[in-house]
Amino acid sequence: MILLAALLAAATPALSPGDIAAAAPASAWRAVAPENLLFVETPRGTMAIELAPDFAPAHIAAIRALVMAGRFDGGAITRVQDNYVVQWAARPGPDKVLTSGGAAAVAAGSTATPGGVAVGTGPGAPHPATLPAEYERPAKGLTITPLGSVDTYAPSGFAKGWPVATDKRSGTAWLAHCYGAVGVGRDNPPDTGDGSELYAVIGHGPRHLDRNITLVGRVIDGIADFSALPRGTGPLGFYKTPGEQTGLTRVRFATAADPRFEVMDTTSKAFAAYLAARTNRTGFFIRPAGATDLCNVQVPVRRVTP
Amino acid sequence: MILLAALLAAATPALSPGDIAAAAPASAWRAVAPENLLFVETPRGTMAIELAPDFAPAHIAAIRALVMAGRFDGGAITRVQDNYVVQWAARPGPDKVLTSGGAAAVAAGSTATPGGVAVGTGPGAPHPATLPAEYERPAKGLTITPLGSVDTYAPSGFAKGWPVATDKRSGTAWLAHCYGAVGVGRDNPPDTGDGSELYAVIGHGPRHLDRNITLVGRVIDGIADFSALPRGTGPLGFYKTPGEQTGLTRVRFATAADPRFEVMDTTSKAFAAYLAARTNRTGFFIRPAGATDLCNVQVPVRRVTP
Repeated sequence: MILLAALLAAATPALSPGDIAAAAPASAWRAVAPENLLFVETPRGTMAIELAPDFAPAHIAAIRALVMAGRFDGGAITRVQDNYVVQWAARPGPDKVLTSGGAAAVAAGSTATPGGVAVGTGPGAPHPATLPAEYERPAKGLTITPLGSVDTYAPSGFAKGWPVATDKRSGTAWLAHCYGAVGVGRDNPPDTGDGSELYAVIGHGPRHLDRNITLVGRVIDGIADFSALPRGTGPLGFYKTPGEQTGLTRVRFATAADPRFEVMDTTSKAFAAYLAARTNRTGFFIRPAGATDLCNVQVPVRRVTP
Repeated sequence: MILLAALLAAATPALSPGDIAAAAPASAWRAVAPENLLFVETPRGTMAIELAPDFAPAHIAAIRALVMAGRFDGGAITRVQDNYVVQWAARPGPDKVLTSGGAAAVAAGSTATPGGVAVGTGPGAPHPATLPAEYERPAKGLTITPLGSVDTYAPSGFAKGWPVATDKRSGTAWLAHCYGAVGVGRDNPPDTGDGSELYAVIGHGPRHLDRNITLVGRVIDGIADFSALPRGTGPLGFYKTPGEQTGLTRVRFATAADPRFEVMDTTSKAFAAYLAARTNRTGFFIRPAGATDLCNVQVPVRRVTP
């Protein structure tokens, strides 16, 4: 039996993670819902972010309101800290004035004017100025595919395509700070974030931020144009002058005209094979690691032609 | 006693990792030897690399010979793969022709000419065309400060300022692929590297490469100009055309006129405090992680005025 198994193994060359993703059947993918697909458009490129309302519903509602109010349009990338994050901010206000046809026009100026409604402060404000922490959620209701390797920080795995870590004692789960994770900036108090400053991880996964800040999703396309931005030279990588910033042309949710994306279903057989192949790389690799950390897996994403 | 300890703790606010590094005494630092300090100069910035001859002496001898022969001058950054590596290559040849005074002049052309000596092939070739793997070394002789957290890949820690992983059974240790680690490109056979193609990690630590490729050091200054380079759009992040590449103006070892660098002594009390502070962050952090992965530590480096 051992000989036969060896022969079979030799006859079936191990597939690379990329091969496995390329060969995965349609059933191994889940569509990214357009209402959770956010495009951040800049002169330097466009980033597609999938939001995760299963993990941070209040923050995502706040971000949605800001996006619909046009508050990110005319905002800017204010911070790029090497091996850490790229961060962008909404305009200080006012909201765009929506015309009857639904088309949006930016009210003049970058501070509140009589014609505008400052999000969080004016009448009809679509979200509170600060939001309570959404650092974790009940693990119940999530189907978690275990990582299969020891995680330095907490037992971890994948739920609905997201890298998650868990705490058995509290029965909670949370999104992990891996490359591309998108979170909501806050000041020192835990609840000061209002969704108007967002960041994406562009370095080694800063997992020490897990459960210390609210994650709302991850970049699924286009991060390379943002991770390659010049680093800010001020403290924490903030740009020292507005001239160094990259403006946000438009931030909007997907429409029928946009490319569609699919994320690998992390409960699928294809993902199990992908995870195994990431854990024990072949080909170039002489000594497979026999383990992988959560952030070295990167759940596959594909763009599909409508 | 417990109360007193609590009072003392309250009276001494926890220092951040940065505070600890800033306050570390002179005795907590070791100088980077000029003969191990390599500058990679480009129009986009200069990177300072500390080489680790304790870990890869043959590869470093080969790199040294290539540098002294001027083979990297006129080379180029040929690959930038997002969340992975930036890679640069020596000119195909010939070597610079050294004048009697030791000053170097680049022989015309980028392929071997009668006046030049192609490294590894011509008479007097300073190193063999290929080098045997230097993926690990005996742990004996290294003083290893343990990480103090569970490492997904292998028991790990710090030796002489380097992040290292270990295998008790084989009694070996090796440099780990953390952000900034510098390695020697190779083809599929394990011994095809000759030191003429080097890479630096610019993404989440690809620890699966540990013991699969020879690491020779790490970037201790200036990586941000290189991690921010445009990503290559060819397979594996290679640039498709030479016009996209960034040239290497000069690659050279340090002289007395250069800035000097020091790396924190990882056997010092200051480093123990730094590691503890990285493991349990305070200030902004509401819930300290109680653990850290190897690559989230980043041994402090400082520039000293001669």
